[in-house]
Amino acid sequence: MSESNSIRLSSLPGIPSIQPGDDLAALIDASTRSSQRYLAGGVLAVCQKIISKAEGRVVSLTDVTPSEQARRLAKELDKDPRHVELVLSETKRIVRKGPEVLICETHQGFVCANAGVDLSNAPTSSSGAPIAVLLPKDCDASAFDLKRSLEKLGHGPLAVIITDTFGRPWREGLVDVALGVAGISPIVDWRGEQDLSGRTLQVTAMALVDQLAAAAGLLMGKDAGTPAVWIEGPRLAQQITNTPDKPSGGISQLIRPADKDLFR
Amino acid sequence: MSESNSIRLSSLPGIPSIQPGDDLAALIDASTRSSQRYLAGGVLAVCQKIISKAEGRVVSLTDVTPSEQARRLAKELDKDPRHVELVLSETKRIVRKGPEVLICETHQGFVCANAGVDLSNAPTSSSGAPIAVLLPKDCDASAFDLKRSLEKLGHGPLAVIITDTFGRPWREGLVDVALGVAGISPIVDWRGEQDLSGRTLQVTAMALVDQLAAAAGLLMGKDAGTPAVWIEGPRLAQQITNTPDKPSGGISQLIRPADKDLFR
Repeated sequence: MSESNSIRLSSLPGIPSIQPGDDLAALIDASTRSSQRYLAGGVLAVCQKIISKAEGRVVSLTDVTPSEQARRLAKELDKDPRHVELVLSETKRIVRKGPEVLICETHQGFVCANAGVDLSNAPTSSSGAPIAVLLPKDCDASAFDLKRSLEKLGHGPLAVIITDTFGRPWREGLVDVALGVAGISPIVDWRGEQDLSGRTLQVTAMALVDQLAAAAGLLMGKDAGTPAVWIEGPRLAQQITNTPDKPSGGISQLIRPADKDLFR
Repeated sequence: MSESNSIRLSSLPGIPSIQPGDDLAALIDASTRSSQRYLAGGVLAVCQKIISKAEGRVVSLTDVTPSEQARRLAKELDKDPRHVELVLSETKRIVRKGPEVLICETHQGFVCANAGVDLSNAPTSSSGAPIAVLLPKDCDASAFDLKRSLEKLGHGPLAVIITDTFGRPWREGLVDVALGVAGISPIVDWRGEQDLSGRTLQVTAMALVDQLAAAAGLLMGKDAGTPAVWIEGPRLAQQITNTPDKPSGGISQLIRPADKDLFR
C-alpha cells in the first residue's frame, strides 16, 4: 500500500458522558495523554452532541411551554408539542413536513430533520422528563474554541470539525456531515484544474470536511461512546491551515444559497 | 489512540488508465502484489469510472444523434445535445432542471446530476470528440464480479464498493457515495437498540457504505490517479459478510422509494 497516500482514523478513548460546563479540551487532552501522544498535523472530529452538552445547549421538556403553532404542528405530525416548540425556535424556515418529522432550515442555514433538536442520546432529567439537545449556536466558533484550547495545552497544529448525523433526500440511512470547522478549508476546489486526459474539470469541488465527517462517523457508533475521532495522513497534514485569530465562518462555504438551490 | 477502534485507508498504487476490456481484478492484484500483501478483512472502494471504462460503458459523442427532445433541452440548459441524449437514455425521470444541469433519477434509482453521464476525466476519442462515460448497468453485479475475481486470485474475504461523486441539495461541494456493494451490509441499523442513557434509538440507521465511500473519496482526488482505496480496521473486519453466490442487490436498500421521499 502507498504510505504517502494513506489516512488513519482512531477514536479517542475514555471520554466520559459530558455535562454542561465540562472542559472538553481538558477531557480530550487527558484522553490523548493516556496514550502518550499529542494531536498534531491532523483533524479532530467531534460529535456535535458533546459540544452542545458542554455548552449547556440542553433543555428539559418540562421547562417548555408550546405555542399554539407548535401544538397544531405536533398534532398534525404526531410529535411532542414541546419538542416541536424547540424545533420552531431553532428554525428560520420549514422546508418540508412529513410523518413525525419537520425538515427545517436552521438559523445557521443547515437543512436537517427537526432543526437538529434531538431527543435521543440525551440524558433524562431528574424529574424523568426527556431532555432535548440543541445544535451549538455557532459551530465554527465552537470548533475554533476547542482548537485554540487544545493548542494552549500543547497540541497542534490541528484542525477541528464538529459533526452531526443528517438524513438525505433520495437515499436511506444517515451520514455524518460537518457543522463547524476550524483550521482546514471546508471545500477542496479542483475547478479549473485539468483531469488526467487534459480536460478542464467543471464541477469537482469536493466537500472535504463532509468527507472527513463521514469517515469519522465510521467510528462514532451511536452506542459506542466514541464522540471524538482523530484523523491523520501525510496529505491531510498539508491541508491544515495556519491558525487565524478568530473563527473563520468557514462552514458557510458549504451552505448553498436558497436562490441557487433547486430543492427549497 | 485506541487500536481496537481504528480504521486505515490506503490508495492502491500503480493502477494505469483503464481501457474497455481491461481486467480490473488482475490490475488490482498486481498493485497489491507490488507491496507484497493480500486484500483481506476489509473493503475495497473502486471509483465508478474505471469500472465503467473496463465494462465498455463509454460512448464517443460523434456516434450520438440527439433526438428532438434532447435538442430542445440542450438549448434550454446550454448543454451539448449529444450529452443530453445520453443523459435521457439513462434516465427514468427528470427530477429537476437547472442551469447546465439535469437532476435525474436513473433506471437503477439513483438521483444525481446528468444521470451520472460524465464528460470529465474521460479519454478523448481519436477523432478529438469528447467521450462520455455512463454508469455501470448493474453496480452491485460489478462489485460482486470484482470481489469474486479477486477471491479467485487468492484475496479475501473482502467487500467491494463502487463509488461516485454526487452533489447534494442544500450543501455545496461533492461527496462520494456508493453505487454498488458486495460483501458488506449497506446500512448499519441501530433502530431498536438503546443509547447510552437507555432511550431507544428511533432513526439511527447509518448508511455504512456511503460513509465508506466518502472516506475513500479523501484519497481519490480527481487529479491523483488513485481510483482504488483499501479500507481496513478491526471492527470493519467483523462486518464483512460471507460471499453469496450471486450479487445481493444490496444497494437498493439505500434507494428511498419515491412515495416515501419528500423531495421528488
